[in-house]
Amino acid sequence: MKSYQEMSKEELLQEKESLKAAYKEYQKMDLSLNMARGKPAVEQLDMVMDILDVLDSKSEMVAENGIDVRNYGEMDGIPEAKKLMADMMGTKAENVLVFGNASLTIMYDTVSRSMTHGVCGSTPWCHLDKIKFLCPVPGYDRHFAITEHFGIEMINIPMTEDGPDMDMVEQYVNNDPSVKGIWCVPKYSNPQGYVYSDETVKRFAALKPAAEDFRIFWDNSYVVHHLYEDRQAELLDIISECEKAGNPDIVYEFASTSKVTFAGAGIAAMASSKKNLDFIRKSMTIQTIGYDKVNQYRHIKYFKDLDGIKAKMKQHADILRPKFEMVDEILTKELEGLGIGTWTKPLGGYFITFETLEGCATSVVKKAKEAGVVLTGAGAPFPYGTDPRDFVIRIAPSYPTLEELRQAAEVFVLCVKLASVEKLLEA
Amino acid sequence: MKSYQEMSKEELLQEKESLKAAYKEYQKMDLSLNMARGKPAVEQLDMVMDILDVLDSKSEMVAENGIDVRNYGEMDGIPEAKKLMADMMGTKAENVLVFGNASLTIMYDTVSRSMTHGVCGSTPWCHLDKIKFLCPVPGYDRHFAITEHFGIEMINIPMTEDGPDMDMVEQYVNNDPSVKGIWCVPKYSNPQGYVYSDETVKRFAALKPAAEDFRIFWDNSYVVHHLYEDRQAELLDIISECEKAGNPDIVYEFASTSKVTFAGAGIAAMASSKKNLDFIRKSMTIQTIGYDKVNQYRHIKYFKDLDGIKAKMKQHADILRPKFEMVDEILTKELEGLGIGTWTKPLGGYFITFETLEGCATSVVKKAKEAGVVLTGAGAPFPYGTDPRDFVIRIAPSYPTLEELRQAAEVFVLCVKLASVEKLLEA
Repeated sequence: MKSYQEMSKEELLQEKESLKAAYKEYQKMDLSLNMARGKPAVEQLDMVMDILDVLDSKSEMVAENGIDVRNYGEMDGIPEAKKLMADMMGTKAENVLVFGNASLTIMYDTVSRSMTHGVCGSTPWCHLDKIKFLCPVPGYDRHFAITEHFGIEMINIPMTEDGPDMDMVEQYVNNDPSVKGIWCVPKYSNPQGYVYSDETVKRFAALKPAAEDFRIFWDNSYVVHHLYEDRQAELLDIISECEKAGNPDIVYEFASTSKVTFAGAGIAAMASSKKNLDFIRKSMTIQTIGYDKVNQYRHIKYFKDLDGIKAKMKQHADILRPKFEMVDEILTKELEGLGIGTWTKPLGGYFITFETLEGCATSVVKKAKEAGVVLTGAGAPFPYGTDPRDFVIRIAPSYPTLEELRQAAEVFVLCVKLASVEKLLEA
Repeated sequence: MKSYQEMSKEELLQEKESLKAAYKEYQKMDLSLNMARGKPAVEQLDMVMDILDVLDSKSEMVAENGIDVRNYGEMDGIPEAKKLMADMMGTKAENVLVFGNASLTIMYDTVSRSMTHGVCGSTPWCHLDKIKFLCPVPGYDRHFAITEHFGIEMINIPMTEDGPDMDMVEQYVNNDPSVKGIWCVPKYSNPQGYVYSDETVKRFAALKPAAEDFRIFWDNSYVVHHLYEDRQAELLDIISECEKAGNPDIVYEFASTSKVTFAGAGIAAMASSKKNLDFIRKSMTIQTIGYDKVNQYRHIKYFKDLDGIKAKMKQHADILRPKFEMVDEILTKELEGLGIGTWTKPLGGYFITFETLEGCATSVVKKAKEAGVVLTGAGAPFPYGTDPRDFVIRIAPSYPTLEELRQAAEVFVLCVKLASVEKLLEA
């Protein structure tokens, strides 16, 4: 097969005409498909409906420490919920606080608290002239939205298959005291599906931050979200690595059951050192009388333990895997050898990252939209929504049905081809 | 009956001896009673256990606007939850956002947001030299804890049976641009059980704040928490009063179902003007992907509508009323005519306020504790935990059983007598 780069101008023009004709056919179909959001499919939600059966009016509502889960109190989570979330993250219960239904809110509140109250006694960030966060790119748009919302300057750090460019991370963190944080999705990263290598984790743990109030924001959202039973990524436990490195306080880890049970009604947790948690508890005492312990208890009754979570994740994988594989299959079939795109083949998580020729991502997303397929906005996985090379597209295969996904992927490859031809013709 | 003030020193000394003997008897009983927290009793929680039956694995999980309540999205609440909470507060659904399980968290977040982002475009409070809040006293300790946590100066405003001293409120709000807020529990106030009169509400609505970012924090926690079916307090709707007065943006109203269903697992809401809500939604979009809509939906299925809430509140009242009446009965029987204390007789809410002779509250609380009865700390209902006259005690009759409460109240009156005799003997 001839790559697009090898084609003559005439061949490209011909290709363009035939692509345009195919594109018009799709436009006529009046499609309404969505590959934009990392939402669980209806089938996945249906699969966990039995969580609604574990508590009823006859249930005992008492946690293992004797407290009534229906009443006020137990601000930082019932003990068995701490244990379960600790097991999920691969850390100890004493390192964990359990919050409400979303880890994003914990992250927001953590940044917000640092703005108004500093970090373990440091100057509140809102009283500092300049605050910076490192942002491995491409990354999770909602992380970047938080730092942007608080006026924090964001610095792009390139991602590799092993994690962020650690030379650059060390350079910034160890020398610039205005660098206060870094956003990480260490396992099955959003949107590439990369897993931080052991070396990367160890280098994170061994950072020597110039700022005493620097923290790693370790968003372990996909910690149990494997696609393949026999090829599960292993990630070192950042909490114990930081302890070993004599840096126990430099990391906050976050996780939730948002894509294990119901996306909107799970439980979320944070893990960190005693010093950090004690500081956070001081604000928590003021911010809340306690999060929803009934829902924590419901999750405990449903899963019993980590094995319960793993069993459920296997069922999720059985629904998700065919979708990831179908997208990969169509991309391979339609684009391999054309020299106009590469994509990741994640073993877990919720996303595939597609890289177009430079300067084509916006055009692909626009064309797809005009043919009825909504993709995550080009630029979204970058701070300020700006992809400097305009070449990254996040594909979210989870929500559509297989049949919808097939159509969406076919429209997508067509749009990639069309945008690429147009780009090459410009040159 | 002779009041303590009328007694001679000799009589007082004699009284003291006999009180001490009785006190020692109680101490021997090794009591462990608690009248400190405004927690629903176990019986009240048992009464709403059937909320756990309304959803099960067979339930339809679709809100009236067609969205799946199990998945992400619908950040500011499902429409029927907005409607229900609006009906509860006596306002319109369009004025309401529904959040997580606790209104305290909404209040904290509202102050926190004002610190970092200002109010509808005003300068963030963290960049201002001085921020003040007015605090009607006695009031709710957790309100004061929020403002103290953010370094906001608190100014005591005396409460009357009709609400805060409005002359003083107007004086401050209309003249001092550093006054940015006031904490209010307008109905069955914490801890006195007073209800703001129509005139008070209208004067609030007609404030002409010197600060454009002044807001009334209207914590309507006890909006449906009547004790008597036939003597229910009416409170004017602050939202529409503010609209009528041409001041639509000066109030945030808060409410929750924390003491309607489960104290720790209810739903909470805020009501305000479109302008305020639009500004808040901007932060919400960053802070959360959405609160727990399954629990919102559960509450809708359980109550159906405001009548469902009212029916449930009647059952709560049937449990609470005898407790309030028993406390009042014992206080009356033991203290009437002695001139050493007065107390409120609320028609709703969760508290009774007892006023001792000046300078006796701390002593009463200490004595009660040493006899095994925990009361809310003296000073707690005041900013910075300081009751300038040391005379206010908050009594929370809800949690103990009737039998426990009888004993606790008997210990309490004994401690009041003893502390008063000691005080009078000092003079």
